[in-house]
Amino acid sequence: MNIRTEIIAVGSELLLGQIVNSNAQFLSKELAELGMNVYYHTVVGDNPTRLEQAIKIAKERSNIIIFTGGLGPTKDDLTKETISKSLGKELIFDQAALESIEQYFVQTKRIMSENNKKQALVLDGSYILKNDYGMAPGMALEVDHTIYMLLPGPPSEMKPMFQNYGREYFQNQLGFQEKIISRVLRFFGIGESQLETDIQDIIDEQINPTVAPLASEGEVTLRLTAKHVDEEVANQLLNELEQKIHARVGEYLYGYEQTTLAQELKTLLIDKQKTISAAESLTGGMFSEQLTALEGSSQFLKGSIISYSNEMKAQILNVSKQTLDEYGAVSEQCAKEMAEQVRKISNSDIGISFTGVAGPEPHEGQPVGTVFIGISIKDSETKIYPFHFAGSRKGIRVRTVKYGCHYLVKLLSEIE
Amino acid sequence: MNIRTEIIAVGSELLLGQIVNSNAQFLSKELAELGMNVYYHTVVGDNPTRLEQAIKIAKERSNIIIFTGGLGPTKDDLTKETISKSLGKELIFDQAALESIEQYFVQTKRIMSENNKKQALVLDGSYILKNDYGMAPGMALEVDHTIYMLLPGPPSEMKPMFQNYGREYFQNQLGFQEKIISRVLRFFGIGESQLETDIQDIIDEQINPTVAPLASEGEVTLRLTAKHVDEEVANQLLNELEQKIHARVGEYLYGYEQTTLAQELKTLLIDKQKTISAAESLTGGMFSEQLTALEGSSQFLKGSIISYSNEMKAQILNVSKQTLDEYGAVSEQCAKEMAEQVRKISNSDIGISFTGVAGPEPHEGQPVGTVFIGISIKDSETKIYPFHFAGSRKGIRVRTVKYGCHYLVKLLSEIE
Repeated sequence: MNIRTEIIAVGSELLLGQIVNSNAQFLSKELAELGMNVYYHTVVGDNPTRLEQAIKIAKERSNIIIFTGGLGPTKDDLTKETISKSLGKELIFDQAALESIEQYFVQTKRIMSENNKKQALVLDGSYILKNDYGMAPGMALEVDHTIYMLLPGPPSEMKPMFQNYGREYFQNQLGFQEKIISRVLRFFGIGESQLETDIQDIIDEQINPTVAPLASEGEVTLRLTAKHVDEEVANQLLNELEQKIHARVGEYLYGYEQTTLAQELKTLLIDKQKTISAAESLTGGMFSEQLTALEGSSQFLKGSIISYSNEMKAQILNVSKQTLDEYGAVSEQCAKEMAEQVRKISNSDIGISFTGVAGPEPHEGQPVGTVFIGISIKDSETKIYPFHFAGSRKGIRVRTVKYGCHYLVKLLSEIE
Repeated sequence: MNIRTEIIAVGSELLLGQIVNSNAQFLSKELAELGMNVYYHTVVGDNPTRLEQAIKIAKERSNIIIFTGGLGPTKDDLTKETISKSLGKELIFDQAALESIEQYFVQTKRIMSENNKKQALVLDGSYILKNDYGMAPGMALEVDHTIYMLLPGPPSEMKPMFQNYGREYFQNQLGFQEKIISRVLRFFGIGESQLETDIQDIIDEQINPTVAPLASEGEVTLRLTAKHVDEEVANQLLNELEQKIHARVGEYLYGYEQTTLAQELKTLLIDKQKTISAAESLTGGMFSEQLTALEGSSQFLKGSIISYSNEMKAQILNVSKQTLDEYGAVSEQCAKEMAEQVRKISNSDIGISFTGVAGPEPHEGQPVGTVFIGISIKDSETKIYPFHFAGSRKGIRVRTVKYGCHYLVKLLSEIE
């Protein structure tokens, strides 16, 4: 069977721009993992005529049609009634759904209306998808070689219903024997086009597992997806592919799945039992904010000094007057002193400094994008990393912090 | 003319669920404001045959068709070429677009490829929508009583293009006589349901202007929208409505349109020529980061101390040992000393402190959500604001910073 899936979202609130169609995104991701091709998303309002038209079009071009929305108590039977009409299938009461709705009203001590009762109406002959987080049940049925699935609109009900019952329905109905496993590799310090160039032949020759690159905010991720009836073999396929990629661009790989550079830094700091403090100038607290956003950060972050003015650099960080006069605040020398001083003042194992020009105006004769990161580790020579970033004030600050985390992760990984 | 608008997004990344169709939401909101009915959203992949089919369907049911995506350099001419074919309109080079693309490559010292040049191809006879944030121009044209508009996919290019040029095109082309003017009022310190209760009768009785509330991250906004052929009258309608709202909940109004509490604080600090510094504990740099994200922040922010450990509080901020031992770090007394000390150390006019428990664990016997904000202004008595927030670590930190800005704005507004 050549799978051609269409997702139809029903709801005028989508057409008015009051909400974004996050259901379509969620389902598309899930369906991609199942190996089901999605060819169309459609959004149509709470209007029976236009919905009927949309169903007619979908029937012609798709063989799996998934509806979200239009099952709730206010515009309750719109989707169900229109589909009922389009497919010539009657609506009947589902006893289990009716009981679960009644139970809900008893539990919440509210009074059940006739409208609520109508939520238990289902398409005759359909397979019921239980709603563990709401009242309207979902349903699925096959008519004339086309599968129809009806899901509720609220994401809090739709997502668990699909994950717990919808996926399984498709797997059984379409006779999927294969398990699908994904792994996300996260890279930093290499541009998207460079990474793609470095592994282009791998991307091109892969069919199973597949490799999908995605770039955002200076980071690149690769999603590897393997299919096999044996989960262990699927995992083995991912391992082999990862090794190949590792041999090419492994030095830029910093983590897996949903991790962040700050998260990896946290793990290493705790693992190596090191404390850290930061002297932040152009980043203005962004580095410290990202670390303290993580639970348990008081274990490793002693604190930081945001030395935005030269006065603060001199008086609190004890950066020498000579350095500020001779080299300026945006200099290798200043970055070095800031990192060393903040480490000493806070009595930490590691001190990191960020100084530079975020813009929009140049500073002390240095162009926008000039950045120095200093890292001082107890009993080691202080390291200085110079940069010339392009981009907006925000982009420069964000990349500065990411590079700081990146080099800390590198240096910490090398420590015994 | 009975307007029936359809938005067609082109891009396989949408069908794979890698991104959400936020463009459709944005455009729907804009079109609703213009009074244009949106009846369908369609998403189709980077596939000429299926795109052609989608265009055919759209032509039959819609008379305004807006495309997003498929203008970029990698899958460059998909949307343009398919539309060119569907409408029988040739693609020709637009001289202005070509020059602007060439200029971009000169500026960024990069080499222009043939693919980049193709971005300057436009549909013959179309009205060009300038791209101020990228290379591919947008375009609009009318064929057989149907208006086609092509917009780029990246929201950072599409949104300003539509707001600056697309809206105007529709207003002229559709001969809208009425001007539509919106004004967003921003509130802080009052919950959404309380604000709605306080002005429910105003919301209910309004037809022109309309009032639409929206809540996010502890803030509430009201969007007032007036329509009138005379722009001055429309503005007058907004003024009258704003006055009515002001009489009820004016004390919580802090700004208009896209401003933020940090932005308002910046304006006041510059206006009153005051400098500030912060002692941040639970917020870990978030307050300072928000201020330094704004251009020109070195005018008013001297710097900050992130005293995450008690050691830092004692040694750098000089919080007395007695306070830390007797009252603890999460106390009114500690907040007071932190605010006063950071102001003195940094030689600023204002010192603000944040201390509290962001969670997930209680700290020094204080429950999660306990927060103290201290504000020390030169020659004034230090003010302490205690809070008991509910919610996540992130939510507690975000609201703490917002309340800090909120009280600073209040206090600064009262200063001569």
